Amino acid sequence: MLTPARCSINTATLGYKEPISKVIEQVARHGFGAIAPWRREVEGGDVVAIARQIREAGLSVSGYCRSSPIPTDSAATREAQYQENRRALADAATLGAACFVIVAGGLPRASRDIGDARAQVEEGLARLLVDARTLGVSIAIEPLHPMYAADRCCVNTLAQALDMCARLDPDHAGGIGVAIDAYHVWWDPDLAAGIRRAGSERRLNAFHICDWLVPTTDLLMDRGMIGDGVIDLSAMTNQVNATGFEGYAEIEIFSTRWWSTENEETLRVCADRLRTASGTSA
Amino acid sequence: MLTPARCSINTATLGYKEPISKVIEQVARHGFGAIAPWRREVEGGDVVAIARQIREAGLSVSGYCRSSPIPTDSAATREAQYQENRRALADAATLGAACFVIVAGGLPRASRDIGDARAQVEEGLARLLVDARTLGVSIAIEPLHPMYAADRCCVNTLAQALDMCARLDPDHAGGIGVAIDAYHVWWDPDLAAGIRRAGSERRLNAFHICDWLVPTTDLLMDRGMIGDGVIDLSAMTNQVNATGFEGYAEIEIFSTRWWSTENEETLRVCADRLRTASGTSA
Repeated sequence: MLTPARCSINTATLGYKEPISKVIEQVARHGFGAIAPWRREVEGGDVVAIARQIREAGLSVSGYCRSSPIPTDSAATREAQYQENRRALADAATLGAACFVIVAGGLPRASRDIGDARAQVEEGLARLLVDARTLGVSIAIEPLHPMYAADRCCVNTLAQALDMCARLDPDHAGGIGVAIDAYHVWWDPDLAAGIRRAGSERRLNAFHICDWLVPTTDLLMDRGMIGDGVIDLSAMTNQVNATGFEGYAEIEIFSTRWWSTENEETLRVCADRLRTASGTSA
Repeated sequence: MLTPARCSINTATLGYKEPISKVIEQVARHGFGAIAPWRREVEGGDVVAIARQIREAGLSVSGYCRSSPIPTDSAATREAQYQENRRALADAATLGAACFVIVAGGLPRASRDIGDARAQVEEGLARLLVDARTLGVSIAIEPLHPMYAADRCCVNTLAQALDMCARLDPDHAGGIGVAIDAYHVWWDPDLAAGIRRAGSERRLNAFHICDWLVPTTDLLMDRGMIGDGVIDLSAMTNQVNATGFEGYAEIEIFSTRWWSTENEETLRVCADRLRTASGTSA
């Protein structure tokens, strides 16, 4: 069974409606073991102080969200986005984050060439990987659901992300892996094999959970509270645990409904649902 | 370049707002070479007369849409849905359809077991394949976009559909293949390989085209007119043609916008766009 102590709250779940200092305090008070903040809450603030508050609250940082998009139609934008990602990586190191989450980006403006976008992602990550190793923070490629291929992320399956890791890090020197988000990959006929592979290749950096609602009324803002949808989170948690994954299961829910709920209530429901919906008798 | 004469109009594109007899006349008058009707337009009517009208209008039938869902939580429903599909297959034979399109169905009510749903699909298709061979109509498994995995179709990649064909028809006796719809598979990193495989295994029964809009505002009813979105239909058409596919490229657009447009205007735009958006210089 997942317990709050073995789980993390991705702050996106709370809709960024309170300052990060208050969110850290709330997450810790509800008994969660970790937090995953977003750049919008950190950049422009005192990163060292935020890191200290998180640490003193007894929380780990399961990940830091997330990269600027990589594919672009101009060299100047490419360089600017790389520099943004490099600075964010440094902040991830300061935060002691288990990984920096890569949401790769979609098609450049006016492009229909998804193969080119994917090649740009790989090239951009090769450069960022050098920084990741220097800073001692792993980058975690997050395959996003295929419905985001055009406008958010052209890495759309776990196999694709792992293949990319294999090409970028053929010698297993480390510094790169994947973030597996149940929402994005639950449908994949090759999911179980992909989780095993991520484990055996030692590239499972993060495990995100939420649920797929039926019906889903919005492509972005209608993700479900764990237990409210059709994903077999129990089976998936068992598969992830079977790889020896020692990180936190991180709850990340983009949802108009939950974003308009008080943080205290959302955190209470998250903790309750962990016990009932994602559990395993093992 | 695709021309109307080498293309088919799936009647879903026109929103079923005119009787099939009128739609047949409109599609033929605009110069298209084929039509793909839906059961809702055919069942309860005089199938033989519809088939005759289509033939006399000079149209081929590129496909007949579509199966009742296969996975279910009760034996009685399973039998009823099989009988529906068997009757529809017989109508497809009467229509002279190139294939009967299988939209497999999603999770049974209250189920979180997508593996079981997929097993039910395969079992159901094994039974239906016997009828398909008897009737001389091929069934075409259409992988649907992963965003429909829960509620419409648990077959979600071309590789998955082709693997299913391989298990159901290991000796290549025929009667089963796939329908490749650009909207559902354009994002797939393995798409080009999958199209080649469908061709070399002689299982490419249908090729559907429309476009993916950015942004997409609805999961079902916001598909794009060819040329209005980000799918490289030209490249995909070339890949399909390179397999030796001799069928029709079938335009199928579920869209609130186009369904509220006069059929004459929609057909005119379809014909125009074929020349500009899906063409190839080859």
